[in-house]
Amino acid sequence: MEATALIAQLADTARLAARTLVAASGADRAEALHRIAEEIAAAEVEILAANAIDMERAVKDGMAESMQDRLLLTSARIHGIVDGAKQVSALPNPLGITLRESTLANGLHLQQVTVPFGVVGMVYEARPNVTVDAAVILLMSGNAALLRGSSSAESSNKVLVEVMRRALAKTTISPDVLQYVPSHDRSTVQALLHARGKVDLVIPRGSAALIRTVVDDSTVPTIETGAGVCHVYVDDEADLAKALPILINSKTHRPSVCNAAETLLVHEQVAEKFLPMALRELSDAGVRLHVDQKVEMIAVASNIPVSSATEENWSTEYNALEMNVAIVPNLLAASDHIAKYGTKHTESIVTENDTHAAQFIALSDCAAVMINASTRFTDGEQMGFGAEIGISNQKLHARGPMGLEAMTTTTWIVRGNGQIRK
Amino acid sequence: MEATALIAQLADTARLAARTLVAASGADRAEALHRIAEEIAAAEVEILAANAIDMERAVKDGMAESMQDRLLLTSARIHGIVDGAKQVSALPNPLGITLRESTLANGLHLQQVTVPFGVVGMVYEARPNVTVDAAVILLMSGNAALLRGSSSAESSNKVLVEVMRRALAKTTISPDVLQYVPSHDRSTVQALLHARGKVDLVIPRGSAALIRTVVDDSTVPTIETGAGVCHVYVDDEADLAKALPILINSKTHRPSVCNAAETLLVHEQVAEKFLPMALRELSDAGVRLHVDQKVEMIAVASNIPVSSATEENWSTEYNALEMNVAIVPNLLAASDHIAKYGTKHTESIVTENDTHAAQFIALSDCAAVMINASTRFTDGEQMGFGAEIGISNQKLHARGPMGLEAMTTTTWIVRGNGQIRK
Repeated sequence: MEATALIAQLADTARLAARTLVAASGADRAEALHRIAEEIAAAEVEILAANAIDMERAVKDGMAESMQDRLLLTSARIHGIVDGAKQVSALPNPLGITLRESTLANGLHLQQVTVPFGVVGMVYEARPNVTVDAAVILLMSGNAALLRGSSSAESSNKVLVEVMRRALAKTTISPDVLQYVPSHDRSTVQALLHARGKVDLVIPRGSAALIRTVVDDSTVPTIETGAGVCHVYVDDEADLAKALPILINSKTHRPSVCNAAETLLVHEQVAEKFLPMALRELSDAGVRLHVDQKVEMIAVASNIPVSSATEENWSTEYNALEMNVAIVPNLLAASDHIAKYGTKHTESIVTENDTHAAQFIALSDCAAVMINASTRFTDGEQMGFGAEIGISNQKLHARGPMGLEAMTTTTWIVRGNGQIRK
Repeated sequence: MEATALIAQLADTARLAARTLVAASGADRAEALHRIAEEIAAAEVEILAANAIDMERAVKDGMAESMQDRLLLTSARIHGIVDGAKQVSALPNPLGITLRESTLANGLHLQQVTVPFGVVGMVYEARPNVTVDAAVILLMSGNAALLRGSSSAESSNKVLVEVMRRALAKTTISPDVLQYVPSHDRSTVQALLHARGKVDLVIPRGSAALIRTVVDDSTVPTIETGAGVCHVYVDDEADLAKALPILINSKTHRPSVCNAAETLLVHEQVAEKFLPMALRELSDAGVRLHVDQKVEMIAVASNIPVSSATEENWSTEYNALEMNVAIVPNLLAASDHIAKYGTKHTESIVTENDTHAAQFIALSDCAAVMINASTRFTDGEQMGFGAEIGISNQKLHARGPMGLEAMTTTTWIVRGNGQIRK
């Protein structure tokens, strides 16, 4: 079948099936997630066999080892997926919550309540765990899901969706709320991105290039996730004993993710004291340093290997042990640098001065501002959401880590007794 | 200057100026709106003179009279604009409101607070009052505005922006937060829609065609406003004495706007009782009726003029005294009709049965559901928002009438004392 017709059919089927999700109570949906967790645990052998087919093809095709690692499923990773599904099932029901309520002078009673989006498309790359992680968050928030993973994970994803559908068949929720989207060519992604009216929302997860393509091409509303050129700014009134571990943690704790820091900005008043130890510790941790001229002088004096930062460096999300370092004359200059090169994800200031912190917050146009804390805390689980489907890097709708609530929209319910406009 | 460069320059200037808006308190912004209201009132002669130029060109170009009426400014209309600005200035400050707050086990303090979008582009058609209505809502919510009206209102809009900037020059807020975007050709719209990274949000207001173009072409996030194919469903358990005024009000109170009803659906159990009087009253009010076969039989028996509805009729937003009428076998069939032809704006059910109302709510995937009330109540002022920049017809971000709150996004502020990820 041609891709546009196929996506339309999958979306229509999913939308009709979603009525069973809306009719189900929060407890019913939690129970369905439990079934899914159990079914996945029971299907471990089947899932590992399917993953072995993907892995064999990946090796044959010469896939990079880091990518192979993302594709690989193991018994431990399947347990992780199962635990994740159980955790989401234990979260509070995000639907039917009254956000605003009032009674007008004419007697009309207004309620703004949370409702699902409807049919949500996920477009993602190699990691097959996203198939389940995304599906359970979407089901728990009452949404049907069209799951379009990478062709390299085709047999893993196909089996994971089959197993989840098998679990749903034992509940009041129709298995058709989960739809596997064939991934052997790009046409299904294109069709999904243009299924306006059929699909309510598309969420891309993966590389910056994938996200760019999805956000730019789509006529379906999208939520841009991911790209993070995050900064740590060490203020002139910073406690340097806090600044050092915050810096090292922000850069090295998990360099491959979006909330890792890429650039260190240091106030000139504390640069000579802070930078020799900071550069030394970064360098010892294996971090390649791209620095401005003033930093280079300090590095050379301390015999720390650095290279001159290019214009491109300042706006690069390395996803690796590399970092840019610059000295700035003041907080405003730090904010200007961030405004020019940042991606509005997470910015951290280390300062003991509350006024400086407030200025930094006001000038930082981003999803999260850290004051004396690691950039790594911009994370749904860390922030107590219990689960995360991604981190929104846009201003429309949810901003920052997105849990169950972010996968709902609202409707206004207006109850009257025959009121008409005067 | 080439359009892309021009828009980039206007947006950069506006973004820098927006720092004065962020630095201003809610009271400062309210005061600025008061100045704007006063300045507009004082500049009445100047504004009417500019409008006369637009009107003269409109007449010469043979603009339709209904369009001429939208373009026209009068002393009374200017007073309306002034009052509107004063009303917005009296609304509560929507910025800096803490929506969620918690302290994590590791001592981190989390706050989700409302912040402005930054630079918002308005693309709108003939009516020059939108220039001020939109500007004051955006300023009150801390946003800078790029105002791109219709070329037919060029001199009116230019003077209105000049007058508002003159008012801002007397405050702590930079006049550069308001930017007039030249409208003599389409290139500035295209440039605005593609100013990703320069403009944070674009809101179109005007015809369905304008909105479609903006939403489809834009790489800047947009909020789709407007199109409303709204339904009134008269249930088998309706109080017909309530149903009739609700129907007439929904259709005829102001047929040209998006929350007017276009289609009446009647449960077959009450059709023979309700339709003769309903069709008669609609017809007497000058409403042209497009009906299905069963309705046609009833109409013919009552000697009421109707025509057979085409497939196109069911999905048409008339913005005029025309209405479709169908008989449905049950509530589910009514919901299926709405799902097929509706635009997810406002749906109204007339029923005395709470279970039926609940089913209708669950099946209506729309911005607002009315129970025993006119569709015309989906309106920011009616719903107590005090002002409205438009009605969102999409699920992402705000849904339904958008007041000041809808013009804000959020940021997470995370305060720590040196916390790092374990």
